[in-house]
Amino acid sequence: MADRATFERRLADAVGPANVLTDAADIEPFLTDWRGRYRGRARAVVRPANTGEVAAVVRACAESSVPIVPQGGNTGMCGGATPAADGDAIVVSLTRMRRVRALDAANSTITVEAGMPLAAVHEAAASAGLQFPLSLAAEGTATIGGNLSTNAGGTAVLRFGNARELVLGIEVVLADGRVFDALRGLRKDNTGYDLKQLFVGAEGTLGIVTAAVLKLFPAPRTRATAWVAVGSPDDAVALLRTLRQALSDRLTGFELVSDVALAFVHRHFPKLADPLPGHPWYVLVQADDPADDSPLASQLEAALAGALEAGIARDAALAQSGDQAAAMWVLRENISEAQKTEGLNIKHDIALPVSAIPEYLRAAESALATAFPGVRFVVFGHLGDGNLHYNLSAPEGVATDDFITQSPRANRIVHDLVVARGGTISAEHGIGQLKRGELVRYKSAVELDLMRAVKRALDPRGLMNPGKIL
Amino acid sequence: MADRATFERRLADAVGPANVLTDAADIEPFLTDWRGRYRGRARAVVRPANTGEVAAVVRACAESSVPIVPQGGNTGMCGGATPAADGDAIVVSLTRMRRVRALDAANSTITVEAGMPLAAVHEAAASAGLQFPLSLAAEGTATIGGNLSTNAGGTAVLRFGNARELVLGIEVVLADGRVFDALRGLRKDNTGYDLKQLFVGAEGTLGIVTAAVLKLFPAPRTRATAWVAVGSPDDAVALLRTLRQALSDRLTGFELVSDVALAFVHRHFPKLADPLPGHPWYVLVQADDPADDSPLASQLEAALAGALEAGIARDAALAQSGDQAAAMWVLRENISEAQKTEGLNIKHDIALPVSAIPEYLRAAESALATAFPGVRFVVFGHLGDGNLHYNLSAPEGVATDDFITQSPRANRIVHDLVVARGGTISAEHGIGQLKRGELVRYKSAVELDLMRAVKRALDPRGLMNPGKIL
Repeated sequence: MADRATFERRLADAVGPANVLTDAADIEPFLTDWRGRYRGRARAVVRPANTGEVAAVVRACAESSVPIVPQGGNTGMCGGATPAADGDAIVVSLTRMRRVRALDAANSTITVEAGMPLAAVHEAAASAGLQFPLSLAAEGTATIGGNLSTNAGGTAVLRFGNARELVLGIEVVLADGRVFDALRGLRKDNTGYDLKQLFVGAEGTLGIVTAAVLKLFPAPRTRATAWVAVGSPDDAVALLRTLRQALSDRLTGFELVSDVALAFVHRHFPKLADPLPGHPWYVLVQADDPADDSPLASQLEAALAGALEAGIARDAALAQSGDQAAAMWVLRENISEAQKTEGLNIKHDIALPVSAIPEYLRAAESALATAFPGVRFVVFGHLGDGNLHYNLSAPEGVATDDFITQSPRANRIVHDLVVARGGTISAEHGIGQLKRGELVRYKSAVELDLMRAVKRALDPRGLMNPGKIL
Repeated sequence: MADRATFERRLADAVGPANVLTDAADIEPFLTDWRGRYRGRARAVVRPANTGEVAAVVRACAESSVPIVPQGGNTGMCGGATPAADGDAIVVSLTRMRRVRALDAANSTITVEAGMPLAAVHEAAASAGLQFPLSLAAEGTATIGGNLSTNAGGTAVLRFGNARELVLGIEVVLADGRVFDALRGLRKDNTGYDLKQLFVGAEGTLGIVTAAVLKLFPAPRTRATAWVAVGSPDDAVALLRTLRQALSDRLTGFELVSDVALAFVHRHFPKLADPLPGHPWYVLVQADDPADDSPLASQLEAALAGALEAGIARDAALAQSGDQAAAMWVLRENISEAQKTEGLNIKHDIALPVSAIPEYLRAAESALATAFPGVRFVVFGHLGDGNLHYNLSAPEGVATDDFITQSPRANRIVHDLVVARGGTISAEHGIGQLKRGELVRYKSAVELDLMRAVKRALDPRGLMNPGKIL
């Protein structure tokens, strides 16, 4: 490569000297993932203000053979935005690119730059009486570019799909610095390969997403929420089907909670309500309708009454107010925190065909109870999407640090059983650095070859976020 | 290549001699597209019965450097399944592969082989109380493999998306004969690049789709249909937004019909009802709900009353029976036939941002009326998707054959104005052979380069459906 000073001057020419950070203290926050699992080094952190500047930075890197790590809000779960330890790369932070380029209410689309926080996209949509439904815990910090690059999931996938399904158009700076402008706001466009879907979920390994055209939807104005006790995961799956039939896609949330998970919440948050104590499994149901006079609550109530009568549900509480609905969601949302207070645990982000979940849970519980006697199963998640947070807490009396050292053995049991049933080892968090080994273990040789062929075709020199995914 | 006899023996070994057609009369139906626009030649037509046989055929072709044209129901609109005139290729017909491999009602998925007719997929889904919503005129013959390879659209895109959005998993025989098995029925799976979306819409140029896992939905049990008169396309766009707000995604159809299109229908089908005569534009509205006790009709009625009060709609008729609803759809469905009776016409399959349509219609009408005085605009289509059938009939008294010779000039005006407004020259029909020239004209050099790079990566020898798309 060219000498370091020349390269850094080119970066400074591209984005202005103030936006090329090299001081150790300045770049520190960009070198570690927020979970503190990975720590890397970098030549510099570069903060472009627009697509032209991103392209100039990438061209400089291409000419000097410098690897690039794109970074949004740095809230990823798998170390996908953290540079390697060798310090060869630069980090390109997109957070200065946060403009709304266009909001087209009649087309139900918004065109935003990659560095815009997800919550800001929500606000912009709401200002037009619309919603952008992608929703996740980190949305105040996570950027839409990161959401697209990781194909984020979250709590509204049942109704609206993953980030992938919410994007109509994209703008990407390619590995050679050229700009791929496909910022089209079209619901139908059959003119060749759907290249945008290659970049969505590619974790920055094929190019840098700089902007996107997103689908918007009418904002919800009527909401109904219920807390339902069921006897088994089988009944939860049957309830899902009943409610989809009754509510169609107005069913927006269907979250499974096990009694163990709920017990953790009540132990650590003793003031919270316990709407229906004494059952083995619960489902948190939410339904939304954009009409302000929708009979949604009575329709949900009737459907739940039918489920009770059919023996699919054991008991049900329909929220009678926004406060009651919020109290139900608090139970669901505090599971992670309660489990954390209980001690470190072994986490999995799995998905299966919904139909396979009940049998999977039996098989996994049996295998894990044999391998780790007394292990506590903290199972919860987006059953409607087939996505479970399948977490393991140490047996009572076992030191959590000792238990955590068993992660590889636990992962092998959990993931082997998932993959054998047509499931995935990463439902919504991606691969990043964390699951590269698991990817190679579980993907077929053909699929890995195809991915490598695509990578070589779009980034022949391997400069885009090296060491991630592949 | 190896000598012809050896190659044909290899094909016969792969699929059985009875399934290698070489007799001119036998292969004739496979050599012409159904519109009769293209006619090609082929060494043979091969009819494999399963994925292993497809793979064996592709391996034989790869070893002998013989191009392959995959074909489903041969109902495509752009000649994408018709071989070239040089006769080098074989046609691989998938129509013997028509099994349902799995129907998983609890997961709302069906796994089908590529050669299954779309209507048969509908029937299989209905047998489980579910629906596969992709719907189009040729569904009795068109195969699901062809639907995926062309990313078919149809009449339910507003609610359910294109074929692309309806597929969870895929199985593809690659250009080297290996099988890419990604038949996963998962709503969330973030383990690397979404390769399946590359093959959807690729028109067989990257591999042969042999099977897919499709999303199913609760079958509709309540339906409401209305025929609405509006004063302008602007009002139609405003009505779309009003109804989306009122009905959410239960709004499944929103079809625009111009007075000229409707007049053609009434001239050639004089017995049909004319629910609201004397208006410049009409919208056919359909809403569906899977619940059997949904107050859908009264909700649609209330929304339309609001639209009338707001001046967005001029008049509205809500179907009071299934027969009345069918009579409304007959008006819409007979436009193509009526226009055909009126004489040959110049057709366009365009899409625009919904918001851009009113101004586009004004600009195009002005430019075309100048270029072709007296031209008759037969405009109709899926306004909810931004997709219009923008067809031009000869001026009264002008011979249609003379008018048709003006197609290139008309296409240039129509497509230039579409692309200038962020639209597309092929909304749902694809590129095939028909629009290759237009693709090169309107796609950016960067996008064409990316497509070629992907093609080279997956089909380096260019044997998969050569001469299509690129």
